Amino acid sequence: MGCKNCCNVCLQCLFGYETNVMLVINNKTVGALFRLIQLLIIAYVAVYVCWIQRAYQDTDSVISSVSTKVKGNILTNSSIEGVHVWDVPEYVIPPQGENSFFVLTNMILTPGQTQSKCPEVRSNASICFVHFHTRRECCITNYSFLQIPSEVTKCESVSDCREGHNEVHGNGVQTGHCVKYSDTIKTCEVQAWCPLENDTIIPKPALLGAAEDFTVLIKNSIQYPKFNFRKRNILHHINSTYLKNCTFDRKTNPHCPIFRLGNMLTEAGEDFSVMALKGGIMGIFIDWNCDLDFPERFCIPKYSFSRLDNKNPENNVAPGYNFRFAKYYKNNENIETRTLIKAFGIRFDVIVFGMAGKFNIVPTIVNLGATLAFLSLVTAVCNWVMLTCMKDRDYYAKHKFIHLNQKGDSVPLSSMETTSYGTP
Amino acid sequence: MGCKNCCNVCLQCLFGYETNVMLVINNKTVGALFRLIQLLIIAYVAVYVCWIQRAYQDTDSVISSVSTKVKGNILTNSSIEGVHVWDVPEYVIPPQGENSFFVLTNMILTPGQTQSKCPEVRSNASICFVHFHTRRECCITNYSFLQIPSEVTKCESVSDCREGHNEVHGNGVQTGHCVKYSDTIKTCEVQAWCPLENDTIIPKPALLGAAEDFTVLIKNSIQYPKFNFRKRNILHHINSTYLKNCTFDRKTNPHCPIFRLGNMLTEAGEDFSVMALKGGIMGIFIDWNCDLDFPERFCIPKYSFSRLDNKNPENNVAPGYNFRFAKYYKNNENIETRTLIKAFGIRFDVIVFGMAGKFNIVPTIVNLGATLAFLSLVTAVCNWVMLTCMKDRDYYAKHKFIHLNQKGDSVPLSSMETTSYGTP
Amino acid sequence: MGCKNCCNVCLQCLFGYETNVMLVINNKTVGALFRLIQLLIIAYVAVYVCWIQRAYQDTDSVISSVSTKVKGNILTNSSIEGVHVWDVPEYVIPPQGENSFFVLTNMILTPGQTQSKCPEVRSNASICFVHFHTRRECCITNYSFLQIPSEVTKCESVSDCREGHNEVHGNGVQTGHCVKYSDTIKTCEVQAWCPLENDTIIPKPALLGAAEDFTVLIKNSIQYPKFNFRKRNILHHINSTYLKNCTFDRKTNPHCPIFRLGNMLTEAGEDFSVMALKGGIMGIFIDWNCDLDFPERFCIPKYSFSRLDNKNPENNVAPGYNFRFAKYYKNNENIETRTLIKAFGIRFDVIVFGMAGKFNIVPTIVNLGATLAFLSLVTAVCNWVMLTCMKDRDYYAKHKFIHLNQKGDSVPLSSMETTSYGTP
Repeated sequence: MGCKNCCNVCLQCLFGYETNVMLVINNKTVGALFRLIQLLIIAYVAVYVCWIQRAYQDTDSVISSVSTKVKGNILTNSSIEGVHVWDVPEYVIPPQGENSFFVLTNMILTPGQTQSKCPEVRSNASICFVHFHTRRECCITNYSFLQIPSEVTKCESVSDCREGHNEVHGNGVQTGHCVKYSDTIKTCEVQAWCPLENDTIIPKPALLGAAEDFTVLIKNSIQYPKFNFRKRNILHHINSTYLKNCTFDRKTNPHCPIFRLGNMLTEAGEDFSVMALKGGIMGIFIDWNCDLDFPERFCIPKYSFSRLDNKNPENNVAPGYNFRFAKYYKNNENIETRTLIKAFGIRFDVIVFGMAGKFNIVPTIVNLGATLAFLSLVTAVCNWVMLTCMKDRDYYAKHKFIHLNQKGDSVPLSSMETTSYGTP
Repeated sequence: MGCKNCCNVCLQCLFGYETNVMLVINNKTVGALFRLIQLLIIAYVAVYVCWIQRAYQDTDSVISSVSTKVKGNILTNSSIEGVHVWDVPEYVIPPQGENSFFVLTNMILTPGQTQSKCPEVRSNASICFVHFHTRRECCITNYSFLQIPSEVTKCESVSDCREGHNEVHGNGVQTGHCVKYSDTIKTCEVQAWCPLENDTIIPKPALLGAAEDFTVLIKNSIQYPKFNFRKRNILHHINSTYLKNCTFDRKTNPHCPIFRLGNMLTEAGEDFSVMALKGGIMGIFIDWNCDLDFPERFCIPKYSFSRLDNKNPENNVAPGYNFRFAKYYKNNENIETRTLIKAFGIRFDVIVFGMAGKFNIVPTIVNLGATLAFLSLVTAVCNWVMLTCMKDRDYYAKHKFIHLNQKGDSVPLSSMETTSYGTP
Repeated sequence: MGCKNCCNVCLQCLFGYETNVMLVINNKTVGALFRLIQLLIIAYVAVYVCWIQRAYQDTDSVISSVSTKVKGNILTNSSIEGVHVWDVPEYVIPPQGENSFFVLTNMILTPGQTQSKCPEVRSNASICFVHFHTRRECCITNYSFLQIPSEVTKCESVSDCREGHNEVHGNGVQTGHCVKYSDTIKTCEVQAWCPLENDTIIPKPALLGAAEDFTVLIKNSIQYPKFNFRKRNILHHINSTYLKNCTFDRKTNPHCPIFRLGNMLTEAGEDFSVMALKGGIMGIFIDWNCDLDFPERFCIPKYSFSRLDNKNPENNVAPGYNFRFAKYYKNNENIETRTLIKAFGIRFDVIVFGMAGKFNIVPTIVNLGATLAFLSLVTAVCNWVMLTCMKDRDYYAKHKFIHLNQKGDSVPLSSMETTSYGTP
């Protein structure tokens, strides 16, 4: 009998269904308020969470691989080099990059350097541009660049120079002698690759300013490993004939992966001829944000362009973008000489980013669950309204709450109507 | 007395415990349904959320650093260069990359180029391979490549050429003359690095086709900054002796960081001899997904390989992977000459990805809380079943709901079906 | 009448407000427990979730662009090259990297290599350092490096060498002859770039050990595309004068983007002179974690430095960091010669990471909702305490639960005290 009872209790525990006893209040104000807030929350979930934020989706970040190919030639006619045609192997440095490519637009050539001794270059605090055709120099004084050797290099006598001294912004190691730099100025002699580069005069207009007509083909293949999704920026419907002749244009050719350099700068609000002078860094952004619940063909890259370095010269060290490299030769006496090139140009960084989303049960349940939990707040709000603002609040409270004191002095249910909330 | 009352109310508010009044219904159908759905949700949480999705974990993305070192030599015997041994500094270009390395497999050499004038190369719409031993050319017509200069370069008289014209797919800038290209064909003369490269004939089989025997050592160190976790792909239990002789093999040596190039391509389903001809891009994926709640030794990298560019030639511009670079010399007359190399090869991109997860209270509470909120849905479903499908639904409803109208015309508690809440 | 009734039911459904009937128990223990747990959960939400984890924020990952510029010169005086000043174009290889730069610190020069035949280098299992001033060799035997050609290259007669054999760790392709390497040792002849490099003797101290005085300017611009936020590591309040002279120092100049190489290594706990010998990889970490709910000026980069490769020689192949490259020349007879350089040095990887957070309603609701759901657990716990641990548990249970059996044998509330769990 005890066991049978025990069994019964167990079964009742397992299969006895517990449900709340509810008080249904026929009050249109509270009822309407309740429905209204419920509606707002459900609308928020439907519109914002589901539609706009797609919170029911699991997400993955893009993995990308980029290769680029620049096309174009330029003929220049400079005093140092004479007539020269620049082709891709010469102006794209290094010949291949991973996610970026550099196009030479301007440069300072210093041919015939050898390891020897020469006077340190005259230092000044001005920068000059030499006009391409008129050969007139145009100098800006008080233009502060870190690259310019400071006044320290000037000397009057040997005592101003220190053997072995290694000026941070200098071009070599001092020998301790003070030698003639020009008719009027003496500077400390340095052991260096001589003759030294004079980088205060930058060709203007830029030597390869015509580089704005160059085109670049960008091949980008991406994947979202979590969803086993792969795609390329050369879309399925694009055929070879189209690719041979197209150039990217946001309106007419938004899917063509061939970009004219000048157009990219124009879209970014930059002037090619200005940027070509001293170089800069451009970002080519490829946005692969995709909703993979839609068919694969809706997942297409969006291109955008913007300048990444700061063109504003105030609080800017080494404005623009340049680097130095050298071509090494051995002359007939087997002595190593080199041509130093200070290369100004535009580095294009191809930056691929994006998130893919796909329906997944975990974020769905988390977001719906959290919203459901919010719905319970509505009840709390409405209860508060009902029990504080309504005319009949005492009447409602009396029916909603059953007060139970310690055993013995309990308030019996039948007498609640006269005793709830404690007032005798 | 009023204050004491007020105090009482306050205390009751703070310490009076409110709990729902429940109706326990002894109905096995609804009870069983309730327990079943509860069980399903709890099982889902336990198995899917916790075990599979590890939703109780906070996550962090991998930060990685890669360095690579290729080994191997090849002897070639070509008509242009004679016997030549290729070592690492020659075929790995550039000598060091950040996350990728390029291995030269085929090339077109154009030695002795100088800045001068020469006829633009004959344009055609076919591509030829020259057989390595038989020297027989094999041409495919109507094969569309963007690289091939178009028919435009042919000319009959001076009027067909424009001085200064800069054909996008040409090799230089036109001088305005029309000169003999061969006995039968005349083309416009260009100012360029002459003689021009003829890239329609690609050595076949690939010059450095034996590169499939090369090995590459990949050193990869990663970290998860959020968890202060660092690891390398050379695992603790691996010693130098093993590393000296091992080669990665998915079955026998899954942790050896030395990879044979040919094996990687085979795993990716590619044929090295085919890919070596015109180059391509391979991805070496290192997957560092780790559950950091387990000991550190279980966090090991998983390698996989796949081709990143599209080998399918339709809708493909510039198939394969190639770039041009040059070696610059000065001849005895101090004139700059160069050897142009169109380098075909395989670029290996080392792509490191992964997420680490570690127990964290926030995602745990969010996920459990959301699931608990879902459990409240079960009650709603069961209530609905109870109140619409059960035979005794009216009887249940009568006890579950206490209807309360405006004060005065309320449904008196005592008269609700005369018996609810029991007191007659 | 039926329709009016139907309408009424509908309206009641819509605007009839349902609220739970609550049992208020005047038990201080349970009440205090209830409030305490509630308080704990709310404190957890306020402090941990909101304040520390900022779970109310939507997040985005950083997108970054880096450019670097090294400054400094070094004078060396070696037996092979004589007095030589090293400037940036010589020791930074390649001249520009994307997110990393390499500074040459030590090297093994092999000038005058041509394609020819020579004996394979003597193999040994020891590595030697030659002291810079005393020229004394210091050798460590049994030091295992993968780079050292194994004993296999020794030969006694022609039969030990195989024509065309391509030893993986060798320097060329064997010709099949066995020739004198030194007075006592014969090795197999190889076709290679001869004379072969002897990389067992590494200059010590490092040739360019003074590179620790070099400085590098790191320009880094980042963006969080989701929040349309951009910033550079050269902050607004920094002016050009400051930038000209500053060097990063964690205490005095924490925002100066110019770093002394030696200081970075010191912060990472490394010794420059040791690391310069055989090279290594350093990580320059820029942490852009930002709370974008605060003004933009609080979003500043935090720099840190650490070594990325393993300096510990056990279980380490190819310790340090080195690569080989060559400078190509043509001699007077138009034969290509090259200077092979095994470059040891420090690769600095600039690793930019970070997450930005900004208030967003979705994660806020998810986190608050989930926490609210947790609050319902408190009720469950308190109910359990009340119904099992309290002295008056039966009395409470009687009032909390209304037992309802199948219609007809319902248990009236008034008789529950004697009839609970149904059996009369």
